This record gives sequence, structure tokens and C-alpha cells, in this order.
Amino acid sequence: MLPIGKTTKQGKRGILERLDAGEIVIGDGGFVFALEKRGYVKAGPWTPEATVEHPEAVRQLHREFLRAGSNVLQTFTFYASEDKLENRGNYVAEKITGQKVNEAACDIAKEVAKEGDALVAGGVSQTPSYLSCKDKAEVKAVFRKQLEVFVKKDVDFLIAEYFEHVEEAVWAVEVLKESGKPVAATMCIGPEGDMHGVPPGQCAVQLVKAGASIVGVNCHFDSDTCLKTVKLMKEGLEAAKLKAHLMSQPLAFHTPDCGKQGFIDLPEFPFGLEPRIVTRWDVQKYARKAYDLGIRYIGGCCGFEPYHIRAIAEELAPERGFLPEASEKHGSWGNNLSMHTKPWVRARARKEYWENLKPASGRPYCPSMSKPDGWGVTKGARELMQQKEATTEQQLKELFQKQKF
Amino acid sequence: MLPIGKTTKQGKRGILERLDAGEIVIGDGGFVFALEKRGYVKAGPWTPEATVEHPEAVRQLHREFLRAGSNVLQTFTFYASEDKLENRGNYVAEKITGQKVNEAACDIAKEVAKEGDALVAGGVSQTPSYLSCKDKAEVKAVFRKQLEVFVKKDVDFLIAEYFEHVEEAVWAVEVLKESGKPVAATMCIGPEGDMHGVPPGQCAVQLVKAGASIVGVNCHFDSDTCLKTVKLMKEGLEAAKLKAHLMSQPLAFHTPDCGKQGFIDLPEFPFGLEPRIVTRWDVQKYARKAYDLGIRYIGGCCGFEPYHIRAIAEELAPERGFLPEASEKHGSWGNNLSMHTKPWVRARARKEYWENLKPASGRPYCPSMSKPDGWGVTKGARELMQQKEATTEQQLKELFQKQKF
Amino acid sequence: MLPIGKTTKQGKRGILERLDAGEIVIGDGGFVFALEKRGYVKAGPWTPEATVEHPEAVRQLHREFLRAGSNVLQTFTFYASEDKLENRGNYVAEKITGQKVNEAACDIAKEVAKEGDALVAGGVSQTPSYLSCKDKAEVKAVFRKQLEVFVKKDVDFLIAEYFEHVEEAVWAVEVLKESGKPVAATMCIGPEGDMHGVPPGQCAVQLVKAGASIVGVNCHFDSDTCLKTVKLMKEGLEAAKLKAHLMSQPLAFHTPDCGKQGFIDLPEFPFGLEPRIVTRWDVQKYARKAYDLGIRYIGGCCGFEPYHIRAIAEELAPERGFLPEASEKHGSWGNNLSMHTKPWVRARARKEYWENLKPASGRPYCPSMSKPDGWGVTKGARELMQQKEATTEQQLKELFQKQKF
Amino acid sequence: MLPIGKTTKQGKRGILERLDAGEIVIGDGGFVFALEKRGYVKAGPWTPEATVEHPEAVRQLHREFLRAGSNVLQTFTFYASEDKLENRGNYVAEKITGQKVNEAACDIAKEVAKEGDALVAGGVSQTPSYLSCKDKAEVKAVFRKQLEVFVKKDVDFLIAEYFEHVEEAVWAVEVLKESGKPVAATMCIGPEGDMHGVPPGQCAVQLVKAGASIVGVNCHFDSDTCLKTVKLMKEGLEAAKLKAHLMSQPLAFHTPDCGKQGFIDLPEFPFGLEPRIVTRWDVQKYARKAYDLGIRYIGGCCGFEPYHIRAIAEELAPERGFLPEASEKHGSWGNNLSMHTKPWVRARARKEYWENLKPASGRPYCPSMSKPDGWGVTKGARELMQQKEATTEQQLKELFQKQKF
Repeated sequence: MLPIGKTTKQGKRGILERLDAGEIVIGDGGFVFALEKRGYVKAGPWTPEATVEHPEAVRQLHREFLRAGSNVLQTFTFYASEDKLENRGNYVAEKITGQKVNEAACDIAKEVAKEGDALVAGGVSQTPSYLSCKDKAEVKAVFRKQLEVFVKKDVDFLIAEYFEHVEEAVWAVEVLKESGKPVAATMCIGPEGDMHGVPPGQCAVQLVKAGASIVGVNCHFDSDTCLKTVKLMKEGLEAAKLKAHLMSQPLAFHTPDCGKQGFIDLPEFPFGLEPRIVTRWDVQKYARKAYDLGIRYIGGCCGFEPYHIRAIAEELAPERGFLPEASEKHGSWGNNLSMHTKPWVRARARKEYWENLKPASGRPYCPSMSKPDGWGVTKGARELMQQKEATTEQQLKELFQKQKF
Repeated sequence: MLPIGKTTKQGKRGILERLDAGEIVIGDGGFVFALEKRGYVKAGPWTPEATVEHPEAVRQLHREFLRAGSNVLQTFTFYASEDKLENRGNYVAEKITGQKVNEAACDIAKEVAKEGDALVAGGVSQTPSYLSCKDKAEVKAVFRKQLEVFVKKDVDFLIAEYFEHVEEAVWAVEVLKESGKPVAATMCIGPEGDMHGVPPGQCAVQLVKAGASIVGVNCHFDSDTCLKTVKLMKEGLEAAKLKAHLMSQPLAFHTPDCGKQGFIDLPEFPFGLEPRIVTRWDVQKYARKAYDLGIRYIGGCCGFEPYHIRAIAEELAPERGFLPEASEKHGSWGNNLSMHTKPWVRARARKEYWENLKPASGRPYCPSMSKPDGWGVTKGARELMQQKEATTEQQLKELFQKQKF
Repeated sequence: MLPIGKTTKQGKRGILERLDAGEIVIGDGGFVFALEKRGYVKAGPWTPEATVEHPEAVRQLHREFLRAGSNVLQTFTFYASEDKLENRGNYVAEKITGQKVNEAACDIAKEVAKEGDALVAGGVSQTPSYLSCKDKAEVKAVFRKQLEVFVKKDVDFLIAEYFEHVEEAVWAVEVLKESGKPVAATMCIGPEGDMHGVPPGQCAVQLVKAGASIVGVNCHFDSDTCLKTVKLMKEGLEAAKLKAHLMSQPLAFHTPDCGKQGFIDLPEFPFGLEPRIVTRWDVQKYARKAYDLGIRYIGGCCGFEPYHIRAIAEELAPERGFLPEASEKHGSWGNNLSMHTKPWVRARARKEYWENLKPASGRPYCPSMSKPDGWGVTKGARELMQQKEATTEQQLKELFQKQKF
Repeated sequence: MLPIGKTTKQGKRGILERLDAGEIVIGDGGFVFALEKRGYVKAGPWTPEATVEHPEAVRQLHREFLRAGSNVLQTFTFYASEDKLENRGNYVAEKITGQKVNEAACDIAKEVAKEGDALVAGGVSQTPSYLSCKDKAEVKAVFRKQLEVFVKKDVDFLIAEYFEHVEEAVWAVEVLKESGKPVAATMCIGPEGDMHGVPPGQCAVQLVKAGASIVGVNCHFDSDTCLKTVKLMKEGLEAAKLKAHLMSQPLAFHTPDCGKQGFIDLPEFPFGLEPRIVTRWDVQKYARKAYDLGIRYIGGCCGFEPYHIRAIAEELAPERGFLPEASEKHGSWGNNLSMHTKPWVRARARKEYWENLKPASGRPYCPSMSKPDGWGVTKGARELMQQKEATTEQQLKELFQKQKF
């Protein structure tokens, strides 16, 4: 058995140092979904005011991901741009500003990172400002406000993630690059490309040209779709003779049935996704495929719990030479079942068993796939945004509502 | 909208005081499963040494259940009898004795309980000693050792739970009653009764006669099966003209396909159960049915996460007059989706939608039900235990292995 | 390979002669469903006027069952009682009386039977008269009218089949016995018993006492349920120390989800049952189980096509010593695939392959089970019938309609 | 209600006359699958010697399709080329030559066609000669031999169907055109094109240039996939400024999970396809979509039974102005259930009900999709054929067997 990886606090090396050396970097999982289930995040707005309201809950989740093998702790600043918090903020105490949320997020992540061999990454994501067609300067100002906190708190590197439009992602990368820190950029798109129709290969090229050292995909799709998209990005970069590290952080849900805009359009989103949750063995298969594709920054997004991240670390333990701390409490491929009192449960203590299991849903009255909602509307909405006829989110909503759906 | 329930630290009333007054008491969820996914419990042994090794993780989970609405915090002492820890303990530091685990569990639960309106319950469950056919005195000695800690730490009441044989459960109740504290007793059985064939109604009668004030079912089966069994217990008590409060703590997994011994025999146990996880709406239906059946102590077992407990508290909020704290971050029946940017997601902000949704598994290559393992063996095993031919667990295992399966 | 069974026209032996000698008698399949798909029977009324309108279609289907191995050709007289034809007859030419239909049915069956080693059985089934609470004499008169034709045409034996109430079935047997011919009686009930709550064991006892030499179950349920019911009948007869031959003619549809009244209450009845159709391999398993249970008259009902009957004959060929004629065109367990051009199709030419195949539905948007309709109403309806408050079918319908459903 | 279409024996108009006039022409269904289930065709070889051995069975099936609304009766000459019959013929009496089979097929079809308003079409399909890489002259000679019979028997028009390679299909069309009769050509390909990679649009162009007046798709795929392919053919023809009538004859099985080579590679082929069988309502949807796409020759292939063809005729009855004869025994959209005794069954007597029903499989232990076999091998096999390394079928088989699968 491989040794449990022990903390080497001295000599923390940066993200690019690691990736350039060919090391595997394991990301963390999905904060908003995990904390929603724990009672600290509201589905819908999905904002991270918990960093101020309940720091112990955020701290504990970071710690669990660290224990599971994460080499990066992303500050819990998802959707924490001022414009987003303003829009949604009526259930959050007024005194909790975006700045406070962002600062607290950095403090917590840095505190936990010290307990192990992890880097802290500050993140920005798509903004209501862009969606309501504010111009480049305005959108960049929003990102810059978040960046100020990350610079002040001196995070290790920066991630622009969860972008549906490469145009906005490029603006984010440009702002983040102003800091001089390494920048990673991931989009929540599928193989069909971004919402304006830019194919993944081209998105990757634009992001690298804008300054991103790491590019890839996060959220919105399951791992199979996600890896397909990263592969297209890789091919786009090769064709353009550009170099960058690859990154993937897919959903922990099976979504073979989702359309261009991903799992949000599935009828089960966000409160009926349980039957789609991936097993640890699904994650091991994903980790192997990602590795074989040349991806070296491998993590997860919505739905990824600590045990899913541990599955990445266990699958790639032979390559890395060690197991994560949390493997103290987990036998590889179920081998800890070998001591079970029932012989037929002991018979499950082997890789072949779990690898080949087709797990039943226990729901014979439910289907195995769904039709995504909102097909017809989507196209019109995209066109509206492109035509910039709707200049505010409110106007856009009204335009939506006039359509039949 | 109902008010969020605020802590009333003064005047904490006991479990029987509450139930006798007709109040609903909400239990907590499944510690071993939740902490296994968080990286602190090993599947297979399922022992709770985390109370000593990682108290912050245990404390955080208690806190989340409290926030979700639990009125009872069960000490995390599952399977923490000395004989169990000895059997399984080789991966746990030697100095971590059962006593230390149990004491730490009490301290943590009591600490968190003070943060709200919750009682602390100490628990014992089935022992390897009984399974290996030790006699009544020996088995009782094991329970008594655990009880000493609960008495020393002065928990509010006691639970004998997860018993497959009413004989052992009765012994446990008898020991717990020595303390003078109220005793609840739940069995992990289905409508067919205990492993010796005693029907649920008779089990309930024996438990009440032994001194239990609250009886019911926990673990092993989904809520539908669990409620069927509690109904049989209720009828048994009525026929015997006995009075007791009723309690249910089912799995958070759909298991219509499991056999007499419950979910352990399903091929997905324990690492492929994800597609069976219940939604919050499934839990609301369960809470309503349990209430209508006359059950007033309503909680969950393996698979129940904090948001599942919150679903009980939300469903029964009209009866209770208030919502749990964690409902600050949760709109009733998805109503917080009404502000979503996509109109078709806004259309999901209503009870009818979620109540009628048949969630897809996203797994078209998987079946919806499984055949439980170990059918043939089960009967033989039961007979062996009845005949007491196997006097140690080791002998039993050997007998098992000789059988074809 | 076993020889193809050749016709031995001389020495035709009667049904009891065969069964008493321990021979297996293979029944035929479902005429109304098969002819509905071929365009000659109307779903809903399900009446057999095709014997007069399109005799060649009826003759061809008889021939196919004979070729497939049927030892009994049932006259196509299902629901051909005068009271049924009167009720439903408005789309059938007036001149087509029940007598004409029944006579033509006998002529066709006898003509085809001569082509092989088959007996002709005349059948009666439940009547509108009984359902509308006519008295014993009136109901018996209806059966007697049909019997007159069977006696005139000198069929080999008689079957009272598709009865939901043992009371009516007993009346039918009593009438049929007047002819002096052997009588078989099957009910369309499940393990819960007849619509008045008489358990299967008691039904069997009453039928044998009334004069039936062969008893069993037909229609309404899949083979698993059907065999469970026949087993209960067998046990009932043994307990009463009565002797009779056993018979089963189940549906060719998988219906694990149907309620007490069988497949008619499933939402898919009768035009969406396709995904439930059993394979030939399912039938082979059924035939083996039926045989092992001691059933010697083994056939099928609705959904059974000629190839399903052939599967019975092939499964039991070792016991019978020969294969049916139609096996000229069928390799046992798919062995004729061994010459396929594709190697992966050749790999399917073996028993283990087909025995273990879990065939996919190709319908990922559909569930695997349905909830039967009409739960609430059923009980009320039964009670109404018992109380005889509704004396005509029309009154019954009105009472139904007043209820919510 | 529309009138039942009565036979107009005088003035039979040709296939092109009808299509040019904008009429809908309804094809027939799948003979080999239907007759396999009736006991007259052997799965594997799938050859049509039944025309000689059991003409009454073939005649009856033709009659049922005619009654169901077919305007074309295809002679049952599938795979009846001499080279095919030689290859497979050891279970068929030696004296049954291809010529005899083909002649008998024509006689039977012509006899039945006279009973209604139907044309007779002679058909040829892909040959073992082409697969074993015989040259153009040899392959054409095989077609010519079949054509001689069709000319002698003076069929109304000719169909080249079930071709996987457009090259062979073009050769077939060229031979058939020698007769001076109208020629239709359909390929058993999906949207990815023929086995040599020729896209559907190009296939259509080549076929029309070779002389086909009608082009389209038959067999191998379900109706959704089939219509996608015909659409690509249509677009190809439009781009090339060619005119032709369109035709579709898909499977009556749901096969969303099949690969490039169609349903033969599904693990359920050919003896476990039952759960995939389409309902009559699925067929009505198909007929409507086909019509809307501009297809006017609409029929079915393997799995299509008479009631499926009737569903095409009923769906398009408003356009055609009449119903088929078999609609005497079928209410539109289940309206004949309105007289059922059970109110909840009466509630099914409407279009919305059947249109929206998601029929359950009754098979909770089975998946909803399968992985096709033979993925790896397929590509190799295609390459082998292209390289013509395997010059006989036997060599090809040996090459196959050397590969792992």
C-alpha cells in the first residue's frame, strides 16, 4: 500500500512550478452545492455570505477537501461580485458587503491551506453586468474590485471560472493578469461551444492569448461531456501552436440528456438531482480518463463532495506515489469490506465488482433520462443578448416572459 | 411565512415531557454515512473514533443537524461497544479506548446542544457479543459499560437502536432502564419481523414491557417499508393495550427491492447507493405520512443529511408553528427559484412541480431495481444462530463460507 | 438433436387420457390479442365474429399454434355468449348471431386439428349477465346455449375460463358437465383470490367439487404471479385431499406492478403494452417453472404468439422426446446464429447468452413500472356488486361515474 | 368519421403516377420478422423459402397488410438471391431453388394484390457476392437472375433495398432499370452514411443518377434516425438540383442506442428485441413526421406488424380521405374504449391519453439502453473489405475471428 501523503509545510511551490514539473494538481469540489445541503447557502442566488455568517462551516468543508487530497483551496467567493450580491441580497444582512465576504473567504482558505500542502486560489465568475450588456469597462471594473481583495490577501493564483461567453472570460483574464499572478480560466460550456457559438478550441486560444496559463472546463456538464470539450480545447491550442496546461472540474451528476446550456435546463435542477449523483468509482474512471487525455489539473464542481475528491487522489495515487490523508478511512476499491460478517458482502471487496456494478436507482416509477426545459426560448434569449436589445436584466426578463414556454 | 424557530435556552424540557404534550420531536440524521463521505469514518467497521481523532468534524455535523431542526442530538457512539472496537480496531490508535470515544462523543453533543433547543441522547446498538452467542450476562455487561459513560456525562435520555433481534434489544432496554432515564428503543427490522421471526407487533410489546417509553424502527429500509413496520408495532401495542410513543428513523435511500435483511444485501451497499438517495421532497412526503400515522419522534438514519432533516422540519412547520434556522437559506417548495434568470427555471418555483417530478437517473445503462445478494445463505445463517451451533463469530464465518453462495 | 414431432393421426387420445398418463399437454396462445394486431378483432369488445367474417385469418392462426406445438386448439368463442354479443354488437352485421360465430369457430378448429395431433376444446367465459347480477338460472341458460353448439359439433373437451368470481365459474362447470365431456376450469385471478375474496385454494376446491378435472389460472397476470396462484390452488386441493390436473395460461406481458384486478388496470392496457412483451427465453423459463411445479397443461393467454408457444415446446422437448414442427425454422437457444457473418453476433449463439440477457427497452424517457389505475374505485365497485344494489350493468356504470377517480 | 377505403379494382395506376400526383403511398411491413414469429422463417439466414413451403402463411400476411392499408405488396423475395440461398440452404429442401422461391413470391403477391388497390413490387437486396468482393459483373449477374423472374411475372415496379454500400446499390439500380420499370432504392444506413463513409446526401445523388425515381432508407434504425437520414438525402438531392420521391421504411423498434451499423449490433438482436417494439401511437407520430418532411412513400421494415401499418393509414386518413379496411376493427386513438365497463379504462378513450403515455417496461431489473457489440471490430472489418484483402466470405470470417472481441 502506498503511504499516506504527509504535509510538507516548507517549500510550498506555486501552481505553475508544479504543473511545469509534470505533477498532478488535484482541485477541490463544489462549495455551493455542498453548503446548500449543509444549510448555509441558498439555492437560486447561490451566494457565499456564509464566509461571514458561518465561517466554521466553510472552514470545515475546506478542511475536508484538503484531507481528501485537494492541492488547491479555492476561496469561497463564487458569485461574490458586488453586482450579484446587490441583486440577490435582500435575505442577507445589509452590512455584509461583497468586500467583507471576499476578505473572509481568503482568510479562511489561507488558514486551512497552512494545515497541508495546498495553494489558495482566488476566483471570479460571470457577472450580471455582462448579462445585462454593460460595456467592457464596466464589467472589468466589477472584476477589478474582487481582484483588489485577492491581491491584498495575497492568494497564490487566480481562477476565472464559470463563464458562458468567452468574451467575458477574456475580459476577466485580462483583469486578473494585472496582478502578475498565474491565471487559470475555465468555461462552463460543452462541445458546441460558448453561448455566442465560439467553438471550444477557439475559446481556449483566446483565453491563452489573453494571458491564461491553464485553460479548461468547469460545471454545467458531466465528466464525459466535459472531457470531450477539453479535448477540443487541446486540439484548438495544438492547431494554433499555443501551449497551456489543461484543467477539468465537471459536475458530479450524470447528465447525458442535457442540452447546450447544461444541467440547469434539466427538470431536476436543482432540487431533484439526487439519482444522478456519481459514485466514487465513476470519479475514479473520470480521473483516469482526464489523466490519459493530458489534463493535469483535475478537480470537480457542483456535486463533488470530499469523498469524490478522494477518489481522484486514490485513482492517481500510483502516479503521485502517495495517498491522501482521508484514505486512512477508506480502503482502495472497497477492500475494507473483506472483514464484513456476511460472506456476500465480503465478496464485494474487489475492484472488478465495483468497476462493473450498474447501480440501480430504486425508482422503478422514474425514467432514466429527461427532456431539458426551455429549448425554444434559449435561442431567442441568446439572440436578444447578442442584439443588445435588452440592456438590463429586468428588460431581458420581461422579454423572456412575453415568450410562450 | 412562519418565523424561524429561535433558541429558548431556559426551561429545557425532557423528551417525555415534549412527547406527552403532543409535540413533534425531530431526530437527527445518519452520522456514519455522512462522516464517511466527509472522510472521517471507515465503511465496513463504521466505528466512531472520530470523536477523539477529529472532534471538529463531529461537532460541525451536530451543528448542521441542530440548525436543520433536530431536537435530539444523538451522541456519536454507534458501534462503540468495547467488543466491537476490539474486533475492528487495528487501524485505530491503540490508546483510543471505547470509553474515550464515548466520553468525547458526549462532550461534543452536549456542547452543541447548548447552542439550541436540543436534547442529548446516548445510544447503544447490537453487539458482536450477542451475534457470537455470548450469554445474557455478558451482553448486558457490554451495554452497562457504555451506560456508565452516559450516566457520568448525564445525557438527557437513552436510545437502544439498530437491533435485529428483539431478545438483545430487550436486554439493552433493561440495562438502560437501570439509569432511571427515559429509554427509546428502535429495531432495524421490516414488516416480516426480527431475525428470529418475531413479528413487529410483538417486538414492540416486549420492548415496552421491558421499559421503553418510545418504540419504533431505524435503518435498513426506506421510509415506506419503515412506516409499514411501525404501523404493525402500533397495532401490536393497541392489541396488547399498551401505550408508548412511536419513532421512525429510516434510510435516505429508495430500497423497494431489498429483502428481509435490508439494504446491506443490496449489491449497491455501501459504495453504489447514490442513485437511490432521496430528495428533500421525498422526505417531506415521508414526514407527512409519519405524522399522519401518529408518529411524533421523526428522524432519519443512514443517508440523511442536514437538508433532509430540514425537510422534515419544513413539512411539519405548520403543526409546530415555526421553521428551523437553516430555513433562512431555503425557500419552501423551491419558491426561491422565482427570481431565477431563466423563465423555465422560474416555472419550477412551486409545490406541484417538485411534488410530481419523477427524477431521472441519468443512467440509461443501469436498471431501476437489483436482486439482493445472499438469499440462500440468509436462512441457513439464521438457523445456525438459532441453534447456537456457532459460538464465536469466527465459527459462524467458517460455517458461512462452507455454504455455496 | 431431437426429432421434429410428426403427426400421428390415428389413435387420437383424449385430454384426460394424456394427462393421466403423465404427458405434457401444450395449450395455445392469445387469439384476441393476436387477431387484434392482425386486424380482425376490435379491442374493447374483443368479440370473435372473425370466425364468420374472416375464417381464413382464424384458420391460419390455429395452424400456426398447431405448428408451434399446441396439443389443444381452443375454439375461438371468447366472449361469444349471446348477452355479450348483443351488448357490443353494433359494429357487427346483425345476421351474425352468437350461434353462427360459435359454430364457425368449431368448424375451423376441427378442420385444423385434423392436420396434426391436437384436440379441440370449446370454451365459455364470464358473462355480462352475471356481472349485472342475473340469477343462477339465467346465467346458466347463457352457458347452456353455448354448450349446445359444442355438443352438436362434438368438440373433444370443454374449458370454463377467464372467470373472476368462483361462483360463476362453478355454475359454468356445472353446465358444461351436463355434456359428459371432460371439463377444465381456469380463473383470471391472482394470489389474493377472486373478486369476492375467495382464496385460490378454495376456488380450486369448489371447481373440482363442481366437476372440473383440470383447474388453474389464465390471463390477467404474468407467469410469475400466475404460477404463484396455481401453487396456492395445488396446496388447497392437497389440503382438501382432492385430485385434479393443473393448468396455466398466463399473459405474455411482464406485469410485476399490477394490482388485484390484473393488467386491465395498468395504464398501458391495451394499446401500450409492447415494452412488456415477454421474449421466447422468458417463456422457456416459465415453462420449466410450471413443469417443476407439477403443472402439465401449459399454455398462454393474451400476448402469446406462436413463437411463444414454440418456446414451451422447445423447453420441454427433452421430457416429451420431440420438437414441434415449427422448430424446423428455429435453432434451440439461438444456435442458428453461429453462421452469422459478424463474429459478435455469432457469439450470441448460446444458451448462457440469452438466459442472462437483460434486454433494454430503448426507451430512456419511460419508467420501468406503472401505478395501476382505479385503486379507490375497485373496492367500492366490488362492494356494490356484493350488495347487489346495482342490478343492471347500466346502473353499475352510473354508480361508478358518481365516484371520483 | 372517414369512410373505409373501398377497393377500386379498375384503373390501377402505377407507382409514379400516384406519387407524381402527390398521393401518399403506404408500404407494407416486415416479412422476415413477422413470419419468424409465426414459425415460417429461420432467424439468422432469414431466407424466404416459405413462399414454396407454406404459401398460405405468406398469402395471409400479405392480406393483412393489404387490409391495414398497404398500397404496395413487396414480393417476399428478401435475400432470395441464388448465392444467398446456396450459402444458407442446408435446412431447406434441395429442390427449392431461388427461382422457384422468387416465382412463388410473385404469384402470391399478385393474387392478393387483386383483392384491393395495391401494386406489386419485386425486390433485390445486398448479396454475399458483393461482401465477398466479387466484381461488378458477377454481382450484377446475381441481380439479373432475380430480375428475370420479376419481368416474367410482370410486377408493377422494382425496389433495390437493404444496401449498406451505395456502390452495390447503384449496381442493383442499373440492373433493375434494364427492365424499363420504375425503380425505388433504399439503403439501410444512418446519418453517418454508408459503410464506405459515403454520406446519405451523396448516396441519394448516386442512386438517382443511376436511375432510381424513389430513394430513401429502410431497416437497421428506428424511425427518428431513419428520418434524419432521409432528410440528409433530401438536402443532398436539393443541393445537386435532382428530383426524386422520398421513401422511408424504418424498424418498429426503439434503437436510440445503436451505432453506425444499426440494430444488428445491439445485444438484443434478434431474440430479445421485444421491449423495444413500438406502439401504434409511436407509429402515428412517425407517419406524421415523415409526411411533414415531404416523404410520400411511407412504410415499415423489421418489426412492423399489420397494426403498425394501419397506424400509418389512420394517421394520414385526413390527407387521404379514407380509412383502411382494418379500421373496421379499430377505433381512432382508442375511442372504442369508451364502452368499457371500468370507468378508469373508459378514461383512456382519447388521443391525449395515448399520445402522452410513457409506457413502462414491466422490467425493473433491466436497463433502458444497451451498448452495441463489436465496436472495435467494425472498423477493422470495414477496412478489410475496402482493402479487398478478404476475397471470400470465408476469408473474411477467419480474419474476424483472429481479432479479439
